[in-house]
Amino acid sequence: MHVTVLGAGYMGSAIACVARRRGHDVRLWGTWLDDALLEACERGAPHPRLKLGLDGIALLRSSLLAEALRGAELVILAVNSEGVVPVMTRAVRFLPNVPVLSVTKGLLESSATGHMDRIDVVAAQALRRAVRFVHAGGPAKAMEIARGVLTWMQFAGSLEDVEACARALRDDALVVSVTDDLAGAALCSALKNAYATGLGLWDGYVGADAHNARAACFTQAIVELRALVAAGGGRIETVHGPAGIGDLHVTAAAGRNRLFGERVGRGQPAREVAAEMSASGELTEGYPAISAAWRFAREQGVCDLPLLESIHAIVWEAADVGDTLARFRIIPT
Amino acid sequence: MHVTVLGAGYMGSAIACVARRRGHDVRLWGTWLDDALLEACERGAPHPRLKLGLDGIALLRSSLLAEALRGAELVILAVNSEGVVPVMTRAVRFLPNVPVLSVTKGLLESSATGHMDRIDVVAAQALRRAVRFVHAGGPAKAMEIARGVLTWMQFAGSLEDVEACARALRDDALVVSVTDDLAGAALCSALKNAYATGLGLWDGYVGADAHNARAACFTQAIVELRALVAAGGGRIETVHGPAGIGDLHVTAAAGRNRLFGERVGRGQPAREVAAEMSASGELTEGYPAISAAWRFAREQGVCDLPLLESIHAIVWEAADVGDTLARFRIIPT
Repeated sequence: MHVTVLGAGYMGSAIACVARRRGHDVRLWGTWLDDALLEACERGAPHPRLKLGLDGIALLRSSLLAEALRGAELVILAVNSEGVVPVMTRAVRFLPNVPVLSVTKGLLESSATGHMDRIDVVAAQALRRAVRFVHAGGPAKAMEIARGVLTWMQFAGSLEDVEACARALRDDALVVSVTDDLAGAALCSALKNAYATGLGLWDGYVGADAHNARAACFTQAIVELRALVAAGGGRIETVHGPAGIGDLHVTAAAGRNRLFGERVGRGQPAREVAAEMSASGELTEGYPAISAAWRFAREQGVCDLPLLESIHAIVWEAADVGDTLARFRIIPT
Repeated sequence: MHVTVLGAGYMGSAIACVARRRGHDVRLWGTWLDDALLEACERGAPHPRLKLGLDGIALLRSSLLAEALRGAELVILAVNSEGVVPVMTRAVRFLPNVPVLSVTKGLLESSATGHMDRIDVVAAQALRRAVRFVHAGGPAKAMEIARGVLTWMQFAGSLEDVEACARALRDDALVVSVTDDLAGAALCSALKNAYATGLGLWDGYVGADAHNARAACFTQAIVELRALVAAGGGRIETVHGPAGIGDLHVTAAAGRNRLFGERVGRGQPAREVAAEMSASGELTEGYPAISAAWRFAREQGVCDLPLLESIHAIVWEAADVGDTLARFRIIPT
């Protein structure tokens, strides 16, 4: 099968490895921001972020978008959320009528409505053309899927397309379940970054002995995700599967979002932590994700989100960590 | 309010501190196994396991059970699961007609049916008398509730009794939600130990870079808990709250169950790890909980539990860790 991956960063190169492992003919196209990454790979060096070689994968620079998409039977969209509209705008006239499996997670402002919305919705509005978007949710750190660690992903979209994507990529290490709840899965993926960052706040503020508080907030995050997903047209059962519980778990357990939260929890202003992490090439998605999630919640009219409200106040309104966490109240349901 | 706590171990002494903080008149009764603990406290030393002083709490040795229960308006049952029937058998004739809030978690063999069942069911059968059992679920490590770390518990039983228990104990640090789903909450509490131990296996076997696998198994544990709770007459919404997701999270994040799993995951036979941990006073509840959960599952006729099956095979049937985890398959739902 001809598989084209758009975006040669961490996740794009990892999913290209998965597709190659399944025996597909894989083309990895880099955006205009990926030149340095592809250059290293062209020299035969490991991918600078993934730290793995990309043997057997065709590498295409950004000028070769038409060539990258020619004859593709499956397109995997793996640029960051800000890159989706610019890349898809250029790609759309070369895009065959095949499923576009998106591993990109986030919310974007719709130029049509001025509101925050799912990436697939905003992209379809911008492209003025239906795209067969399939969203890939679930707990899937790029490094680990590339290395074949057991991973459970959930593909969401039209049932015909999700089944085709699942058949193309599942193997012994990659379990793929499917759902037609594109809204629910995409919203879980977009919103969990905000909550995962918040869970790190407790570690930084209370220290190691706040397991009860962290577990309470993990549970409360699921409660709030349910409300937000339902408001956005998704189904709550999706929150209780890999795209919700699973992805929140992996994001909160490790990584830059948690680290960002921990540093803020220890009392360093969020803007300062974000600037420092950004300067060292570690900028967390969780920082803007909190602002985007909070805006989405207000635009959807969802109230009773005490956890998200606290996280937002600390990270975006410079509220005092101690005061805010001390006043934070779970609303028993 | 007169509050009597039965069992002066880790959790009993912690919940006594919570009740005292709320201003109640608290009596802490120790079983015949708790003499050494109470002796230290009587001398004014910190509780040997909790490492906190029990100021203002009346301490009663095991011979003073009648005195401990006289005039109690709330009884808190905090002995271990094996102690419930022996202690309640002695206590029953002194027991006022008040709610019995049980923080004890586990499954017991019913002498009436020969099957594994909830503690409240087995105790009521053994006592041949209705007891107003309320189950306390949710992520509540004893040390942290005693110290006032934010904690979310869920009390389950008749709505009148759960409300009374919640009013008696909730405060700024302790959030208490209530449900009438006693079966669901008690089964979540009993079964999560088995799964939490299993999550530790991945850490030991794969090492630190198995976040995807651990998150997949966390999600799968919730899937399997749903099936087991439904079979046992509970409601699946309870699995998605503090008694399920929350308690699984806190148990898997830290503590002896996880450590036990990690050591087995690194290849040491489970029986040997259990013997060593037991010898150093650290025996994990997760070891017998796996056997009890597996037996419960079979007796209830629940199939499709690949995670519990794998954990049981490794821990109780000496199956090879690597082979078993490599063959383990999540069943996509």
